Amino acid sequence: MAALNGFNRKKLGMNITSKQPNTGTTIFTVMSKLAADCGALNLSQGFPNFDCSPKLTDLVTHYLKKGMNQYAPMAGIQPFREVIAQKISDAYQINYHPDTEVTIVSGATEALYAAIVAVVHQGDEVILLEPCYDSYAPAVTLNGGTPVYVTLTPENGYKIDWNVVKSKITERTKLIILNTPHNPTGTVLSEDDLTQLAEIVRDTNIFLIGDEVYEHIIFDGREHWSLLRNPILQERSFICGSFGKTFHVTGWKIGYCLAPKALTEEFRKVHQWLTFSTVTPIQYALADFLKEPDNYLSIPKFYQEKRDKFLTCIKDSRFTYTPAHGSFFQCVNYQNITDEGDYDLAIRLTREIGVASIPVSVFYNQKNDYKILRFCFAKDDETLERAGEHLCKL
Amino acid sequence: MAALNGFNRKKLGMNITSKQPNTGTTIFTVMSKLAADCGALNLSQGFPNFDCSPKLTDLVTHYLKKGMNQYAPMAGIQPFREVIAQKISDAYQINYHPDTEVTIVSGATEALYAAIVAVVHQGDEVILLEPCYDSYAPAVTLNGGTPVYVTLTPENGYKIDWNVVKSKITERTKLIILNTPHNPTGTVLSEDDLTQLAEIVRDTNIFLIGDEVYEHIIFDGREHWSLLRNPILQERSFICGSFGKTFHVTGWKIGYCLAPKALTEEFRKVHQWLTFSTVTPIQYALADFLKEPDNYLSIPKFYQEKRDKFLTCIKDSRFTYTPAHGSFFQCVNYQNITDEGDYDLAIRLTREIGVASIPVSVFYNQKNDYKILRFCFAKDDETLERAGEHLCKL
Repeated sequence: MAALNGFNRKKLGMNITSKQPNTGTTIFTVMSKLAADCGALNLSQGFPNFDCSPKLTDLVTHYLKKGMNQYAPMAGIQPFREVIAQKISDAYQINYHPDTEVTIVSGATEALYAAIVAVVHQGDEVILLEPCYDSYAPAVTLNGGTPVYVTLTPENGYKIDWNVVKSKITERTKLIILNTPHNPTGTVLSEDDLTQLAEIVRDTNIFLIGDEVYEHIIFDGREHWSLLRNPILQERSFICGSFGKTFHVTGWKIGYCLAPKALTEEFRKVHQWLTFSTVTPIQYALADFLKEPDNYLSIPKFYQEKRDKFLTCIKDSRFTYTPAHGSFFQCVNYQNITDEGDYDLAIRLTREIGVASIPVSVFYNQKNDYKILRFCFAKDDETLERAGEHLCKL
Repeated sequence: MAALNGFNRKKLGMNITSKQPNTGTTIFTVMSKLAADCGALNLSQGFPNFDCSPKLTDLVTHYLKKGMNQYAPMAGIQPFREVIAQKISDAYQINYHPDTEVTIVSGATEALYAAIVAVVHQGDEVILLEPCYDSYAPAVTLNGGTPVYVTLTPENGYKIDWNVVKSKITERTKLIILNTPHNPTGTVLSEDDLTQLAEIVRDTNIFLIGDEVYEHIIFDGREHWSLLRNPILQERSFICGSFGKTFHVTGWKIGYCLAPKALTEEFRKVHQWLTFSTVTPIQYALADFLKEPDNYLSIPKFYQEKRDKFLTCIKDSRFTYTPAHGSFFQCVNYQNITDEGDYDLAIRLTREIGVASIPVSVFYNQKNDYKILRFCFAKDDETLERAGEHLCKL
């Protein structure tokens, strides 16, 4: 490319007052770049290093060639919304109307943002259970809300103390964001969790977001306790799902939001200004692919084997851990190995032993010293074996 | 699908206080649905009824099959950002650094929203030139800003009176949004427009958004006067582009934002929470496709022939019009035909003569009685001919 010496290289006069002065580059970008620079095995960012089903790329190709390349309807194409509603109905005997309660979005991140814009007014409080995905708090803050944190700790297996959640509720509480299966900890909500949450919110006007992008990545015969399975929760919930996570296509950026009609109406009013609609040929392809339930019912076993493979590979290491209950992440405690902070250790392991991970402290608002790293096991077996060999030497 | 009689069909207790109580279904959705229901020729919503180059779908297929299906980097893949920077440099001799000043987004609508989130603080004013695209005002309002309107009228060919723009500026003015070539009117900014705007903003801290999604759809030898061609404007501008419009793939929802480094930093902080990244195989495909300049340099001639075809088809009608200078829209005045309001007429023409259009009043905040319809001529010749036949009977 031409030398970058145009007028815009000069120091110019415009200053911008940042609305996010403390936001830097996300840890996922930092670690993936460092892993690439060091030639390290990248078990940091949450994406598979294997491909999706060729049936799925064949379907996208089919619809590309068929000319399905113009705007989809704002809410998504009808057959896609219908098959999602059918899938939910089959799994949970709960009916979302495809016309008015199912919306296709450009990834679950967009769904989360749109739901937050839809309900959070200036001055509202939003309860976040940390550690949590890094978009929640900025999305709340950018929309005039205040995050209120409930801290989950490794000492008790990140279990939610619902009395603490209840104690954080004020007249200004507008929303609680839940994530199950949980990134980064690999924990899952139980039926009892839903019951306790329902007791807390039943007489309030508090809305819920269920970030359930790992719904099919759940292990050891556990059930996915989606918020929609409890009627008191369902009527106030935006349920966010991701096909990228389920079908090994994180780069396709397509997901959905389920919500009762009145909530969906407000959600769509926002979605239409954020992205308006989502990639048409991919919608048609996924609509067909979802018609074969084995395409998603096979996922828990597939990822359980990945988890077990990774645990076998690190069983002779000095890490301690509870096997993940869901998600494609395994958290490990390294306090038997070193006193270093987790950020420093994650950087050092990438550089020195060639294995990239994510320091779990970055998922907390409050500084902490928990000495936990998160490894993504959505990798081919050879990568997991090589990572295990390196990690066992620590 | 199963009967919709689950518990969520009952009237439940949650109420949501709408942040957009006056937002209904967009006119584009209304008219496209009505056109489909009536079997009418759909010249309303702005999308082609012909397909993209098979070279482009071949490229996407190639990268799908090659396994480029995981997260792209948040800002977009490097070769795509580089080829965009090169294209801009070749066209305008202005250099945007691909690493820090070019960002790939999930459609220009996302770019517009993200730029507005990035700069608009609570209480800021944003100048909009109406008629304008329907996402501008809600995006401003949702982010705590107040739209301040400058009204362009058909009487003087929608020309911008820069003295009026200047008169609207206050200490709270944070942003002005410009659109060239212009939807719905088909007008374009001139070099003199940029000079006048630069005089107004040069000693201010006002930012600009250049909505330039029709940059390659410009006629009769006119140049595209992008805001980036004036240094005073460039240093404060977010330039939003769309590959969907240029390459007949509106359903792929992919575009870009160019902005100086400090502005791009804030833009990306927002983009990462809105959608994080954009469809990977499509990024690789477009990066290759852009390397052949003829793929976009041929577009003005292609669409000028479409415009001329449509004008030939309606030349015996009683509509009056100035041929569009750019965009794929032709506005026509129907005051010789009827006194009806444009919304009523657009509905009636769809039902009775089978041609759908968009009433231009919907692009205005203020009610008006201009008697203008917008027709999209991005249609195959047969569709334009049939539409012309019907319209000439009025």
